[in-house]
Amino acid sequence: MKIPEILLVESQHKPGSLAKILQVIGDLGLLVENLDAVRRDQDKTVWEITLEMDEDAYVNVDEKISALPNARLLGKSDRVFNRHQGGKIQTVSRLPIDTLQELRDIYTPGVARVCLAIQKDPALAARYTARQQTVAIVTNGTAILGLGNIGPLAGLPVMEGKAALLAKLANLSGVPILLEETNAEDIIDIVTSIAPSFGAIQLEDIAAPECFEIESRLRERLDIPVLHDDQHGTAVVTLAALISATRRVSLDLRSCVIGQIGLGAAGIGISRLMMAYGVRDVIGTDLNSGARKMLENMGGRTTGLAELMQQADIIISTTGVKGLIKPEMVRKGQVILALSNPDAEIEPRVALAQGAAFAADGKSINNVLGFPGLFRGALDAGARTFTDAMLFAAAETLALIAPDNELVPDPLNLDVHKAVAEAVAFAARHGALQDAEESGEELSQD
Amino acid sequence: MKIPEILLVESQHKPGSLAKILQVIGDLGLLVENLDAVRRDQDKTVWEITLEMDEDAYVNVDEKISALPNARLLGKSDRVFNRHQGGKIQTVSRLPIDTLQELRDIYTPGVARVCLAIQKDPALAARYTARQQTVAIVTNGTAILGLGNIGPLAGLPVMEGKAALLAKLANLSGVPILLEETNAEDIIDIVTSIAPSFGAIQLEDIAAPECFEIESRLRERLDIPVLHDDQHGTAVVTLAALISATRRVSLDLRSCVIGQIGLGAAGIGISRLMMAYGVRDVIGTDLNSGARKMLENMGGRTTGLAELMQQADIIISTTGVKGLIKPEMVRKGQVILALSNPDAEIEPRVALAQGAAFAADGKSINNVLGFPGLFRGALDAGARTFTDAMLFAAAETLALIAPDNELVPDPLNLDVHKAVAEAVAFAARHGALQDAEESGEELSQD
Repeated sequence: MKIPEILLVESQHKPGSLAKILQVIGDLGLLVENLDAVRRDQDKTVWEITLEMDEDAYVNVDEKISALPNARLLGKSDRVFNRHQGGKIQTVSRLPIDTLQELRDIYTPGVARVCLAIQKDPALAARYTARQQTVAIVTNGTAILGLGNIGPLAGLPVMEGKAALLAKLANLSGVPILLEETNAEDIIDIVTSIAPSFGAIQLEDIAAPECFEIESRLRERLDIPVLHDDQHGTAVVTLAALISATRRVSLDLRSCVIGQIGLGAAGIGISRLMMAYGVRDVIGTDLNSGARKMLENMGGRTTGLAELMQQADIIISTTGVKGLIKPEMVRKGQVILALSNPDAEIEPRVALAQGAAFAADGKSINNVLGFPGLFRGALDAGARTFTDAMLFAAAETLALIAPDNELVPDPLNLDVHKAVAEAVAFAARHGALQDAEESGEELSQD
Repeated sequence: MKIPEILLVESQHKPGSLAKILQVIGDLGLLVENLDAVRRDQDKTVWEITLEMDEDAYVNVDEKISALPNARLLGKSDRVFNRHQGGKIQTVSRLPIDTLQELRDIYTPGVARVCLAIQKDPALAARYTARQQTVAIVTNGTAILGLGNIGPLAGLPVMEGKAALLAKLANLSGVPILLEETNAEDIIDIVTSIAPSFGAIQLEDIAAPECFEIESRLRERLDIPVLHDDQHGTAVVTLAALISATRRVSLDLRSCVIGQIGLGAAGIGISRLMMAYGVRDVIGTDLNSGARKMLENMGGRTTGLAELMQQADIIISTTGVKGLIKPEMVRKGQVILALSNPDAEIEPRVALAQGAAFAADGKSINNVLGFPGLFRGALDAGARTFTDAMLFAAAETLALIAPDNELVPDPLNLDVHKAVAEAVAFAARHGALQDAEESGEELSQD
């Protein structure tokens, strides 16, 4: 897989010397992701150049740059590692504790009054503790990013990343919980045991098929929202992108044939949400027969890759296999979302060149657009579970506020997550109202 | 029990009107804990008066204040509850996430490099994640403060208080973990399962006798520091106060007869640490025969309350029973630490009036002096467990830096916790060095 590498390159102050360095990099087929001048002396500058490259390409870059007359490779910088020093998250006190009175109010003896009030009325915990803002981010490390089963500890930087995003984008407290367990039953029991600590549970990077049973059983057992982000977070953002894309080319999304390539957690989650949204024809393909069976049981069809590419109006791929979709497979007018990170099944520019109506990859269709607002909205509404209505509300909001030239909005825009949260909270409350109406509790019977 | 109540009282601007209000409060036998002018108009002021009072005393205060010519009780304020609104802790991102580059460094794709590095060398998790600064604060709610078994959710404000103090005083991230479990075996299993998420485990407010087994088994099973604060945190601060007290009256602490009244988690923890420190004669008393048996198995003696008060030079009480020690039981020259909160077994001024050489209560001898520095030191040193040497180092440091007129230092002074952490870390490293020497690994054999 390609991962960003950061080169430190020194260039003499001669016109064209930087261009020559970049030319060498371009000639090796590498993309420049970012460029910064990190030090400037009288006669030379040190550049930090961020590339997407394979480990083995490094030797070539080294050689080629060293051969230039006015440049020198100083080494690899550790900007990514530097940013991870000491971890990415921290628990802080929301209150000052500078005086004895403050200490006595938030700790003994004052805290005893709050404890007794919650003992009398447990619902008060939502108001007088941080529980309703706190989300456990639970993983067993069996499917970390595209890296596979690297274990929970090696997955911790991803969980901290999610927590940092929950904090920045939705003002929520994420708590990474790492479990050295692969048995679904054990994971369900452990998460159930620690659930009283949290307002919601985000399951993360747990491999299929265990992830399906773990999530559905936890949703049954717990009275707080539980969401396996890989299934539903990705599905919400994908649905948003498809609502955007079909609206622009005046297609009716529900009448389109959707082809889902790869039926792991994300693929199954996307297929399920599409059908729930009203899409009538979902075709899927996967090498694993159990995964195909699952889609069929949900009401989808399965076929081979070539047939799927032939039949579907909309292609979604979540296989982790770079270049799986050959350019010649693309049909004119197709919408193609090749979502595997960091390397897509087909590069959007290639798909577009083949006549695709729209094409995007996992860099823009990223679940960071979904989970912060989904959890904020569910918690704000005091929802006891995630409903499809809440997922649709999130997707439709994302589509609605996407800029004209994009399928989805900018994930770093805080207003985006606020809008998603409000729509999700509204859907949660509206759903609750509907339930009450149906059960007749709030309405007279005649 | 007495808990702080906050009255809002309006007084007319007449000389002496505030004095009359305070006189009424004093006549009811209530202590004023704090007084604030929260609003001042042309002709009147609203005072926020914090009292220690029982719920039923409220009616009397209301009546008496209303009978005054220039005052009016507006109601009870909720300063304590206000401070608890939304909880006391929050997870924040340690890094800005404002640009695409920052997002790509701390989340996908950059984070993948850090994950792979940790997979290769798990020790790197201490450097590139927040794990080594993160402490799980685990309770099952069976012994919250002096309130007893009120359940884990009602205990959450205490756990958040501990986390807020870890953050403010030691720059550590505390994570409350609430377990709806009373079976020791189940608790041990659950904590073991989630342990990979944390740098250390603080067990909190778990009732005796289960707390002893839970802690000792977890210490065996886990390779991270585990500390039941009620046992050892309290013991460390008590030992510090006794080192201070005996030094000032030129007594040899180790030769003193120590009488421990109450053999729950705190009492057993204190007795154990005293014996480990070299105190040769510890007498204990408790209504529970299992608790007495436990002390005897540890090498202590047991007897009745009256005999214990007769025989011991130093009295420590941790019973939760207000006024248990009658004034006439006190012998001249005794050191008395009556530690139950919020109501001591004997008030220090009463004990001093009876001739005690030193007397203190749980307000000054509070475990908030211990746990922040103990955990910071253990984590800084990368210790795999807490040793007695580390507990002694904390106690001796607290005694050393106590001001001349106090047995222990001010818990809100950040330098105190820094000093404790450094001493604990030194003891942890020194212990590790000794072990290496003993095993001969670092030294030649001749």
